[in-house]
Amino acid sequence: MNAADPGAGVGGAQVRVALDAMGGDHAPEAAVAGAREAVARWPDLEVRLVGASAVLERLLGGTPAGDRGRLPVLDAPDRVEMSESPVEAVRRKRANSVSLAVASVARGESQAVVSAGHTGAAVAAATLGLRLLPGVRRAGIAVVLPTRTGSCVMLDVGANIACKPEHLAQYASMGLALSRRVMGVPSPRAGILNIGEEQGKGTPLVQEADRLVREQGLPYAGYVEGRDIYEGKTDVVVCEGFVGNVVLKASEGLAETVQALLKENLLRTPLRRLGALLSKGAFREFRRRVDYAETGGALLMGVDGICVVAHGRSSPQAFASALGYARRCVLGAVNRAIVDGLASLAPASGTTAEGTSA
Amino acid sequence: MNAADPGAGVGGAQVRVALDAMGGDHAPEAAVAGAREAVARWPDLEVRLVGASAVLERLLGGTPAGDRGRLPVLDAPDRVEMSESPVEAVRRKRANSVSLAVASVARGESQAVVSAGHTGAAVAAATLGLRLLPGVRRAGIAVVLPTRTGSCVMLDVGANIACKPEHLAQYASMGLALSRRVMGVPSPRAGILNIGEEQGKGTPLVQEADRLVREQGLPYAGYVEGRDIYEGKTDVVVCEGFVGNVVLKASEGLAETVQALLKENLLRTPLRRLGALLSKGAFREFRRRVDYAETGGALLMGVDGICVVAHGRSSPQAFASALGYARRCVLGAVNRAIVDGLASLAPASGTTAEGTSA
Repeated sequence: MNAADPGAGVGGAQVRVALDAMGGDHAPEAAVAGAREAVARWPDLEVRLVGASAVLERLLGGTPAGDRGRLPVLDAPDRVEMSESPVEAVRRKRANSVSLAVASVARGESQAVVSAGHTGAAVAAATLGLRLLPGVRRAGIAVVLPTRTGSCVMLDVGANIACKPEHLAQYASMGLALSRRVMGVPSPRAGILNIGEEQGKGTPLVQEADRLVREQGLPYAGYVEGRDIYEGKTDVVVCEGFVGNVVLKASEGLAETVQALLKENLLRTPLRRLGALLSKGAFREFRRRVDYAETGGALLMGVDGICVVAHGRSSPQAFASALGYARRCVLGAVNRAIVDGLASLAPASGTTAEGTSA
Repeated sequence: MNAADPGAGVGGAQVRVALDAMGGDHAPEAAVAGAREAVARWPDLEVRLVGASAVLERLLGGTPAGDRGRLPVLDAPDRVEMSESPVEAVRRKRANSVSLAVASVARGESQAVVSAGHTGAAVAAATLGLRLLPGVRRAGIAVVLPTRTGSCVMLDVGANIACKPEHLAQYASMGLALSRRVMGVPSPRAGILNIGEEQGKGTPLVQEADRLVREQGLPYAGYVEGRDIYEGKTDVVVCEGFVGNVVLKASEGLAETVQALLKENLLRTPLRRLGALLSKGAFREFRRRVDYAETGGALLMGVDGICVVAHGRSSPQAFASALGYARRCVLGAVNRAIVDGLASLAPASGTTAEGTSA
């Protein structure tokens, strides 16, 4: 594993990512275009396109020869449709694109897998095809959300809907590894999502998780409330999968509704339309800032291999960003950091390397 | 009880609301100013100001004589401070303003209570001082959220952090009563918040609640996901208090962050500043639309009396809106609708009046 600074060039070292080229609303076209964009941008990156090889080869026509060498194709005759039950489909169609992309990681041929297909299918394929990292009890899905001051890692957002306190405590440790190694926060702090900041608030689950995290000596800011997420109170927010999923989707819905309502109001009179035109750059910058986090995709944490789940509606640019995010996770050696972090916690209470290794 | 159309004048009938005049960041000044605004606006409204009488009498100086008669003062020597443990403070300080305002409802002197103080204190005072409505198992806090198409009632947002399926099913019934009788939706539908729309998704709690609601024949649209809340898929969204509280606060935080980031971007260049100036009206309308719901405050549902919890930062206008909301709940006879709705469900499965009484 390579523990170099995330994003720094690694001089010839190849980062090999397997891309589920058939997953996503605009696949395979957007997937192939995104992969081309990504290899052109990062000379250390190889993207293995997994899917219907004849289609993929055709779409790759016209790629500059220098880049084409870093875009091998791996044939996968099946694909998981959005309408299928993901776990069943992954089990039944053995040669589906996401499972074969995961298998490429399991064989050590690739270090990461990216899919914009059904989240459930990607999670099922990865948990079936890759083992859990040593010490990890349950995988969790982490997203990066924009905040007033930067960004924040939140997990779990749907892999583990009924958590035990130990799971939440491990998520804190995993989230801190992601924040430090990939987001580049030198001394991140975690918080547990709750309905109030005071001790004694909340369910037995969060109270017990709070006790565990304190005992383990993780860099911890205590409970955070819903509003603290976007205000950037902590770098990592930990919650049960049910809660995280609902908060994430409600946030997406609210952000879209806000934009739609504002647009409606801005188009209502000629004067306002002119005003909106003059200040167009502000809206563009704003959207880029808010989208920034999303485009990276979600990271399935805790499995032995990097697994990035991109948005179903991914455009070529979004695919390129998701590939770039996977690359940063590989270069940042986030999984090594998770294993080391958990190992240093294992002996039970007291101080740990987690708080000081940054 | 008066079942007239909410908002319609009731010809001389007095709506009597007890206002915790000491609760809120800007109390008592903003509370008194809001009460003056409210009685001037609604001639059928009487607002009983509960708090330090000498202070309140002074603040009422200069009120037009016609309105002054509808602003009686009730002395409450104590108040609950934001820093106190609300339940303890309510128990210890017997003559605190929110408890005495609730007591005025319990005596039948007022029909509703409004407080912008500590939410926990208001909920504690109301659940201690008012009985549950016949048939109600647990009180719940309902908020009205803006959606793309109008608004949506969500409950519980924090009164009941560990729900049983029966509680969620009752919340659906209560939320429908609020939507129909106060929000004026002729045929509202409820949904249960979950992490997916398909049957079999989610925790045992939501699955069992889903079964109950279907069995009771409530107007029901099935599961809704986080993003459906703001898209207005259903008129009522039901969830456990922990989840609802986190979603509500995350939404508030996100909305504020979005506005702050956009403003920052709009002020960055002179051209953008000009653009923003020209389209100022759009932002104002947008904010009014988004604030609309909030200003009404949250409604503690299930107790025998209307109890509106306003935002801690309430301005005079927000106090007036909260008083107006309490008035609409009284005129809409929402509690009578809850009792009737639950009674009609009681005989067990089959059809109910709930779906057809509108």
